[in-house]
Amino acid sequence: MAQTLTHKLIAAHLVSGQMIPGEEVALRIDQALLQDVLGTLVMLELEAMGVERVVTSPSVQYVDHALVQQDGLNAEAHLFLERACQRLGVIYSGPGNGISHPVHMEYFGRPGESLAGCDSHTPAAGALGMLALGAGGIEIAQAMAGEPLYITMPRVMGIYLEGALPDWVSARDVVLELLRRHGVAGATNCILEYHGPGLAALSVMDRHVIANMGTEMGATSSVFPADEAVRTFLKARGREADFRALSSDAGCRYDLTDHIDLAALEPMIARPSSPDNVVTVREAAGEPLYQAYIGSSGSPGFRDFAIAADIVRGQMVHPGVSLDINPSSRQVLATLAREGYLEALVSAGARLHQAGCNGCIGMGQAPAAGRNSLRTVPRNFPGRSGTLEDSVFLCSAETAAASALAGVITDPRMLGRPAPRIDEPSEMVVDPRMFVAPPEPDTQRPVMLATTHTPALPMLAPLSARIEAPVLLVVGDNISTDDIMPAGSRVLPLWSDVSASAAFTFEAVDKGYAQRAQKSQLGHIIVAGKNYGQGSSRENAALVPRYLGLEAVIAKSFARIHWQNLVSFGVLPLTLCDKNDHQRLVESASVTIEAPGEQLEQGENIKARLADGTAVMLQHQLSARQRAILKAGGVINWLKMKREEGAH
Amino acid sequence: MAQTLTHKLIAAHLVSGQMIPGEEVALRIDQALLQDVLGTLVMLELEAMGVERVVTSPSVQYVDHALVQQDGLNAEAHLFLERACQRLGVIYSGPGNGISHPVHMEYFGRPGESLAGCDSHTPAAGALGMLALGAGGIEIAQAMAGEPLYITMPRVMGIYLEGALPDWVSARDVVLELLRRHGVAGATNCILEYHGPGLAALSVMDRHVIANMGTEMGATSSVFPADEAVRTFLKARGREADFRALSSDAGCRYDLTDHIDLAALEPMIARPSSPDNVVTVREAAGEPLYQAYIGSSGSPGFRDFAIAADIVRGQMVHPGVSLDINPSSRQVLATLAREGYLEALVSAGARLHQAGCNGCIGMGQAPAAGRNSLRTVPRNFPGRSGTLEDSVFLCSAETAAASALAGVITDPRMLGRPAPRIDEPSEMVVDPRMFVAPPEPDTQRPVMLATTHTPALPMLAPLSARIEAPVLLVVGDNISTDDIMPAGSRVLPLWSDVSASAAFTFEAVDKGYAQRAQKSQLGHIIVAGKNYGQGSSRENAALVPRYLGLEAVIAKSFARIHWQNLVSFGVLPLTLCDKNDHQRLVESASVTIEAPGEQLEQGENIKARLADGTAVMLQHQLSARQRAILKAGGVINWLKMKREEGAH
Repeated sequence: MAQTLTHKLIAAHLVSGQMIPGEEVALRIDQALLQDVLGTLVMLELEAMGVERVVTSPSVQYVDHALVQQDGLNAEAHLFLERACQRLGVIYSGPGNGISHPVHMEYFGRPGESLAGCDSHTPAAGALGMLALGAGGIEIAQAMAGEPLYITMPRVMGIYLEGALPDWVSARDVVLELLRRHGVAGATNCILEYHGPGLAALSVMDRHVIANMGTEMGATSSVFPADEAVRTFLKARGREADFRALSSDAGCRYDLTDHIDLAALEPMIARPSSPDNVVTVREAAGEPLYQAYIGSSGSPGFRDFAIAADIVRGQMVHPGVSLDINPSSRQVLATLAREGYLEALVSAGARLHQAGCNGCIGMGQAPAAGRNSLRTVPRNFPGRSGTLEDSVFLCSAETAAASALAGVITDPRMLGRPAPRIDEPSEMVVDPRMFVAPPEPDTQRPVMLATTHTPALPMLAPLSARIEAPVLLVVGDNISTDDIMPAGSRVLPLWSDVSASAAFTFEAVDKGYAQRAQKSQLGHIIVAGKNYGQGSSRENAALVPRYLGLEAVIAKSFARIHWQNLVSFGVLPLTLCDKNDHQRLVESASVTIEAPGEQLEQGENIKARLADGTAVMLQHQLSARQRAILKAGGVINWLKMKREEGAH
Repeated sequence: MAQTLTHKLIAAHLVSGQMIPGEEVALRIDQALLQDVLGTLVMLELEAMGVERVVTSPSVQYVDHALVQQDGLNAEAHLFLERACQRLGVIYSGPGNGISHPVHMEYFGRPGESLAGCDSHTPAAGALGMLALGAGGIEIAQAMAGEPLYITMPRVMGIYLEGALPDWVSARDVVLELLRRHGVAGATNCILEYHGPGLAALSVMDRHVIANMGTEMGATSSVFPADEAVRTFLKARGREADFRALSSDAGCRYDLTDHIDLAALEPMIARPSSPDNVVTVREAAGEPLYQAYIGSSGSPGFRDFAIAADIVRGQMVHPGVSLDINPSSRQVLATLAREGYLEALVSAGARLHQAGCNGCIGMGQAPAAGRNSLRTVPRNFPGRSGTLEDSVFLCSAETAAASALAGVITDPRMLGRPAPRIDEPSEMVVDPRMFVAPPEPDTQRPVMLATTHTPALPMLAPLSARIEAPVLLVVGDNISTDDIMPAGSRVLPLWSDVSASAAFTFEAVDKGYAQRAQKSQLGHIIVAGKNYGQGSSRENAALVPRYLGLEAVIAKSFARIHWQNLVSFGVLPLTLCDKNDHQRLVESASVTIEAPGEQLEQGENIKARLADGTAVMLQHQLSARQRAILKAGGVINWLKMKREEGAH
């Protein structure tokens, strides 16, 4: 039967499960990608699991998020990661090499392989014909240890591209148009597979732009064929040998379909403060501008910087506009310098920043409150720029550069000049010596990784024989992982230290929570509304409350990734059989669950008792694997047990 | 009589006073330089003085310090400064244009003119044959308003240079050798004047390196002749018309002399944590390295970056070493890009940062605690890098680059290869459109500058007819202005708001001070030990305590600049006639001074009474001008009175 490329890639990596949408499938993972802010916990998890050498190859630790170094903590984290890489067999890509996603494609991505990364934009590597998946850190740690990665089998949406992009319109406008159509949840549990004659004119980095922002539609991943564009991309980086042609079969059936006539597109822009708040640039034109920001994994290609350079070449940005250039990788930066584009940008008034994620994750370049910032980044969620009352638009490099010159939001077609033509050089600047390769494993017992700033993970106890604990916190609907564990320059440097970050837990929701939890000798329970744990996949939003004694969350419903993270760290995620019972679960109510381990195995229902002896019926939807993990007290314990059993 | 160039420059700008070392002289100021962190207060002071248009020309506001923008406050400050420049007739040099000192030389510096700047490294412009002086913000504001700048007539130290620098030795090594000889206070109340045949081979930016770090010896300024090197420098920037030859007269006499045979120098390095802790690089060689940092006003020349590029070209920095490149100016950055040096640096593993002060003032790039950082910056005071327990060395770009390759501190002569030859291009990238020029003044009443983030300065009352106030704080010796008003990323963005920064006053010394001061209805007095107010010239260390009610400081002795700043903001700086009285001035003792204004005019002694009726005799050393300022309640009131009198 004719297969989609997505099905071929999944089939080639299927360990168990059936390729039926909605079913859990287990996938073999070839390559692993870590970023620094979540990588420290992954390293500690690998150590706690007893892993001596990772099996994914390559596994690469990138340092791209925490580059500001306002005090010594960022540098401590970099040194920790470098040491952990040496010990565990991971390639270290230090600060300055660039953003994980483009750098991984430049040096390591290979058509047909699977990639798992602890960063939500990992699917960008789908541009190379890879099966690239983002997940929580502990799931990546498992994959690196040789375990499969479990995902819900997605539906495949075939997006047929035809025609060619007009002048002044680029890949950013394609994906903004898709966001306009489908919204930020329109591709949930889908993989977006691009096909059709329109692909011919899209380079691999154009496809990266599109695949990257599949994440903003909620997609599990995005997949492009490995065609001549991929061969050209690899050849320019001295890696033609890694090429392998891959495509869907003619006549294959997609679960869902969409269609874009590229020739009919025009410059698009997402208004504040959601990536799907998309209108044409024409509709926003004329609004004043504080900042034009080019870079990030949302716009990492050589051509995006080069076309901006050609637009501003010989001119000067409008007085007072900050044109911020954030090179995506060392390769892109060095090649831009070699080809004269960097001089053009700097001479025209641009601020040139180091290669990395930078302002895209609020690490510098924050705009003034209420002043418009035009960015080529993937997200414009409120406050993500670092400024509480920000006003961030998402657009293409062409629109950002044209607007920087004019001082107001400008459709680049209105510049009244021919569009620059950018040909990516046939040879990029390539030097793999920028990576620190791990040494061959030796037989000596390796030293402990943990340090003062990155202490070992807390040991978690197996599921209690009996839970009797107070409700310490009652929260409403849509509590995000940001509410549970804040980010920002104040807390981010402490993320690698569970005990140090504990004090900030639920800070914006209930300042007293962490202290009450630490005082409670009995452990505790949290009661929540709908969609508990939405947003970022950060696993410390489960681990740290667990460290503070959290035994169960009783919610109206859970966000998918956080639900898995709770299981991974041994916290029972439960819902109510009777929604009316919610009002009985008030703060400081005492909840008793007898023999929870046995109850888990006896069906979906869990019986609890309140202090007055009355019963509350709870529910779970846990697989056998998840129940085993919960009873073991989380993934680390479970995996250690499995490995010890395997050793006998 | 044969004159030194220093005497010629002072004489040409002398408004009043005699050129006798130790006497107060008043100087006419031609040009003004502001940096952003202290510039906001200067703008508010100009507004409070009633100045509608500054008279120095050019007056340039640089934005080079607070570039990180972790939240919206830095950007708010930039916008405030841009608006203030438009209103007051100041040229605005926005973020990305580079560090004030080199940019001012590239575009505005002119031999023979005087320059005053609210930054301690302003004397770097002495490299152009200017009389360039750093001072507190309110003194610069006065100069910009057309008042003279008052300094203590310095002694002139003639430093005779002969010979030529050997390969691998550069201007940094010259000034490090001077620091080794004279120490950090060795040039107090001196101007260092360089002369002799050795000058021929030192470019203007080499001289900038040397003049810049005169500040680290405590010098009032440094002066170089305006010779062919200056003509070449100006010509390469399209400004030959600004050249004017200037030198000392043959046979002139210097108050002090020193002599350096350039040919006898070798690479030098200042060990942690003082700029005068200098040894040869040979003596420090072999120590491991975390970071090599190139940039800042301590090493701003094209050649410093270019030689580092040629040293690392085609190689890769040692694994794990962070080679941080901080371009000093847009001009230098664009020219490095044009000439291929940037590609060489980036390809060899450097991290390229935006043009600005950056890590030199602890704004990013902080090293890990205890790890060696080699920097080409002017200062290595403990913690200045942003890391509390830092280990910062000062050296040349050659030593930093060679060490980055080797991974240990390395004498560049040990590289075993010919030294690169760098010729500065005969045409640099020049584009004055990067500055925002102020519009011509119009007749409309201008709008107020003050905003929420930069509220107007508090109005200060004239000196009280009677002081009766409690001692709210008793401190020991050597209290620095950092102790009084902390910097760092937490407090720095609030410096432009006197009321918001008040809560941090004396934070590290006595957390309760600010609150006690705010509660006291009577105002208050501080009692201190020796050298009160040492360190940075930040004027808010006087203004903010005054805002909190400080009426007098009774100290064993004062640091010179802070003593002037106290006067400028209407606080009486007094010493004890009998040191034994110090022990009677305990916390919460009440001090009464009857008719302080009258007492000031009756001589050096001031009589105070304690609550038990006993007398304490105090002393002042204030000039008539200073007494008038104090009685008016500070410089702003005094100047407004003078201007109103002038108008009649």
